[in-house]
Amino acid sequence: MTKVQKWDFMEVAVKGEPVENPFAGPVVTGTFTGDHEEITVDGFFDGDDCYRVRFMPSYEGHYRYRITGNVLSGEVSGEFDVTPAAEGNHGRVQVVDGRYLGYEDGTPYYSVGTTCYAWVHQNEELQNQTLETLAAAPFNKIRFCIYPKYYEFNRSEPLTYPYERGNGEGFDRALAEKTERERKNYPGTEPAEMDYGFNYYRLNTEHFKRIDRRIAQLRDLGIEADLILMHPYDRWGMNVMKAECCDLYIRYLAARYGAYRNVWWSLANEYDLILSKTTDDWERYASILCDKDPYDHLRSIHNCMKLYDYSRDWITHVSIQRQDFCKTTEYTDEYLDKYGKPVVWDEICYEGNIHTGWGNITAQELVRRFWEAFLRGGHAGHGETYLDEKDILWWSHGGVLKGQSVERLRFLRKICEETPGNYLKRTAGMFDETVAVSGEEEGYRTMWEMGTCDYEIHYLGITQPAYRMLYLPEDLLYDVEVIDTWNMTVTPAGRHSGSARIELPGRQYMAIRIRRVQEKDRQSTGPEES
Amino acid sequence: MTKVQKWDFMEVAVKGEPVENPFAGPVVTGTFTGDHEEITVDGFFDGDDCYRVRFMPSYEGHYRYRITGNVLSGEVSGEFDVTPAAEGNHGRVQVVDGRYLGYEDGTPYYSVGTTCYAWVHQNEELQNQTLETLAAAPFNKIRFCIYPKYYEFNRSEPLTYPYERGNGEGFDRALAEKTERERKNYPGTEPAEMDYGFNYYRLNTEHFKRIDRRIAQLRDLGIEADLILMHPYDRWGMNVMKAECCDLYIRYLAARYGAYRNVWWSLANEYDLILSKTTDDWERYASILCDKDPYDHLRSIHNCMKLYDYSRDWITHVSIQRQDFCKTTEYTDEYLDKYGKPVVWDEICYEGNIHTGWGNITAQELVRRFWEAFLRGGHAGHGETYLDEKDILWWSHGGVLKGQSVERLRFLRKICEETPGNYLKRTAGMFDETVAVSGEEEGYRTMWEMGTCDYEIHYLGITQPAYRMLYLPEDLLYDVEVIDTWNMTVTPAGRHSGSARIELPGRQYMAIRIRRVQEKDRQSTGPEES
Repeated sequence: MTKVQKWDFMEVAVKGEPVENPFAGPVVTGTFTGDHEEITVDGFFDGDDCYRVRFMPSYEGHYRYRITGNVLSGEVSGEFDVTPAAEGNHGRVQVVDGRYLGYEDGTPYYSVGTTCYAWVHQNEELQNQTLETLAAAPFNKIRFCIYPKYYEFNRSEPLTYPYERGNGEGFDRALAEKTERERKNYPGTEPAEMDYGFNYYRLNTEHFKRIDRRIAQLRDLGIEADLILMHPYDRWGMNVMKAECCDLYIRYLAARYGAYRNVWWSLANEYDLILSKTTDDWERYASILCDKDPYDHLRSIHNCMKLYDYSRDWITHVSIQRQDFCKTTEYTDEYLDKYGKPVVWDEICYEGNIHTGWGNITAQELVRRFWEAFLRGGHAGHGETYLDEKDILWWSHGGVLKGQSVERLRFLRKICEETPGNYLKRTAGMFDETVAVSGEEEGYRTMWEMGTCDYEIHYLGITQPAYRMLYLPEDLLYDVEVIDTWNMTVTPAGRHSGSARIELPGRQYMAIRIRRVQEKDRQSTGPEES
Repeated sequence: MTKVQKWDFMEVAVKGEPVENPFAGPVVTGTFTGDHEEITVDGFFDGDDCYRVRFMPSYEGHYRYRITGNVLSGEVSGEFDVTPAAEGNHGRVQVVDGRYLGYEDGTPYYSVGTTCYAWVHQNEELQNQTLETLAAAPFNKIRFCIYPKYYEFNRSEPLTYPYERGNGEGFDRALAEKTERERKNYPGTEPAEMDYGFNYYRLNTEHFKRIDRRIAQLRDLGIEADLILMHPYDRWGMNVMKAECCDLYIRYLAARYGAYRNVWWSLANEYDLILSKTTDDWERYASILCDKDPYDHLRSIHNCMKLYDYSRDWITHVSIQRQDFCKTTEYTDEYLDKYGKPVVWDEICYEGNIHTGWGNITAQELVRRFWEAFLRGGHAGHGETYLDEKDILWWSHGGVLKGQSVERLRFLRKICEETPGNYLKRTAGMFDETVAVSGEEEGYRTMWEMGTCDYEIHYLGITQPAYRMLYLPEDLLYDVEVIDTWNMTVTPAGRHSGSARIELPGRQYMAIRIRRVQEKDRQSTGPEES
């Protein structure tokens, strides 16, 4: 009997009759039935005479399946057993309490993402190098594009095209011309020499097969694959297809990738720069995804200048590019409160030295933005844009990491994962610090005086105080640690009550962690140096 | 014949009869008449039997004066000649075109201020040291308080009190009690052991005499004296006097200090923390100043959290403390446009290492905030709060400067003063830079492409690009220089037209200066290294 882990991947491949366009609609369908669920999903065509149906079980136990379809001579059925999830398999990432993210098995998820937009479109050697780098890095999410990318530093043709070569079948000439006219009002969007020589009704299965493998490899590294379905940086007509071709593409992705537990759907990178699309288009794509993905993977859409309406029901989390050059993740808690959804900063400028400001901030500043995001209850994504002799920039191509932020993000993730009660949220603090607490606050709290919270982190950001006053409750006891977020150290700073002066090194990027000493621990002497 | 420079100081001292309270109202008045002006001003009592009347002439030539008053047995009159202003005497600072500041003689004024709130209340030795420091520093404005200050690091009694000792005459007990009750809602404002043992109807002339001398010394150093009339940090009852005592104080200051060309009136430091005052109070004080200061010295009021309504007619410029911890002088151009008045950032956090965020930013960050302010057409003030064994912090006590920002502010002031056409204003630029231009912009300009401005500075702030693209008009020629605002260098970067790649060192805090090459200079080779 086939055995599959819970939240892992069951695939049934069947041979079918040729049809005129096997991509045009669901030609096979599978129903998977266990004791606790029955899921029906579309299959997809994978070239030659091969159709595949994929399924992710959410429960242990015995399952049966039936595959039907107009390309099959009869029904295909079978059985399999779902075994417990192995170590490292925590299930999907989901929304918790409308504010946080957590794995299906209850493990908290602090999303320390990165961005390699076009890594799956590079040569195999470079892709493998990227995976090696990721295996050693702290990231647990990566954003990348299903479609290839045409942009500065990205002028090469992709390894494979997403469509079969053709004569522009499905190309919408009127839309393309209208879009080209509109582009003139957006001096930042560069015109490209377009290549419309594809059949937009026929997907290139080799392209998607390659991505299958990469999603699975990411899954095995514990990395969420934040799939970007569309983006503005197009040279191959992917943004000026007819609507039916767009819909076909979305359905195909749902059928092909929906059963990977680590998939997130990002409808677009910088949706507002895709001049050919309307809100109705995005909403239609979203409704297809909602309809065709039975696992309700996380769904969002990423902006350039104009925020999408994140209050839309289909959007599970706020996937956001910073709106102001100066003030970025400081807005995390405002967005959390406004939308009542987790906030994931999916672009806050990259560590690097290229000529434009989205790709030339320091490691210190990027790390600072991460701390602000996480201590306010959000999440953030990294990227790296250091100039390279071969024009291989991590932000788009992957490869190796050259910056200094990565190790600090590993440290931050560790600090986050040490949170008792699992989740951090911002609370009142002095105007010059960001204070995160875990769990419920009981006592009255002001900017000056702490309540009776069990666990707090005060992040001091760009300031460089030589000491800091804490105003703790007089009747409670707290262990205090000084965290150097840049040098990645945690140093005990004594056990305190009431007004306490905590000595600091007079450097930037410090934090203070405060843990209430429980009654039973009162005899101990506080934390050891770590 | 007495000779006085234009915009300098004419004083007539007269002996008068004793009256019950010579501070209570104008007891002598002077009228000064020249060919182009006739000014009537109140005199003031200066102890013993001495009354003084002071006058600042705004024109050269022959003047006559007449002093009258109920304490005089008759009229006192005389004559004097006003000579041309000597070098370094530029007259008052005034508003230019509703957006800038300039001296009366047409010299542009870029206000590089500093703050030593209580320096005139320290011992004489320390005051003299402060003046020596100022003489070697780049500052052309200083903020300080007429009243002594009680606050953290400021627990000593002042050298002199502003009032004569007494039994609380003029003390408003009901107001004091109401204020004490309100303080409980402001946990940040500390209660003090109050000393109401003064007569608030009688000013201590020694106190004001000392300040006379300091204002004059500042004037001779080319430093504007931004006099803070009231502030929240009181232990001596100055904020809970009866209204008539407040008014008497304001009138006295106008009469005593109005004739110094370098005086600015700041009604308050952090007016909104003076819980005893209402808007009506501030407006009344302002009207007294407008009425009693015939020279219309600059007038404003400084906030803590809540901005005053800067659109009030009496307010000549926006004197503002930063409102957000992260985004500060980036708001300069917004305030300029909103109020149509010059913007002077009179508190943007200080370079230092004390425990609270208003006094522990780095020199780099303070200098960056200055550049943002000036390149957006505003002005900014410095302060320094490094911990000191003797608790002598520049921000309040003066003394010596310990920080690294000062030399960079000197460099910035020099760059500003090199502006052709005299004033900088912000214009369109890429999202990651602040671009200042001088003079009129002729050509169409977008974020990406420059118009045909003669002079520009692009400030790149926290970014660290290895190069920068400029998109200059194809048909014009520009000399380009790279400015390192931290290392204080200006390096020629060639003569360019059209798209130009400017190499940069990949460090933060760089700027690029662009000057259009005039037709007549086309044969030269561009600027020399400076």
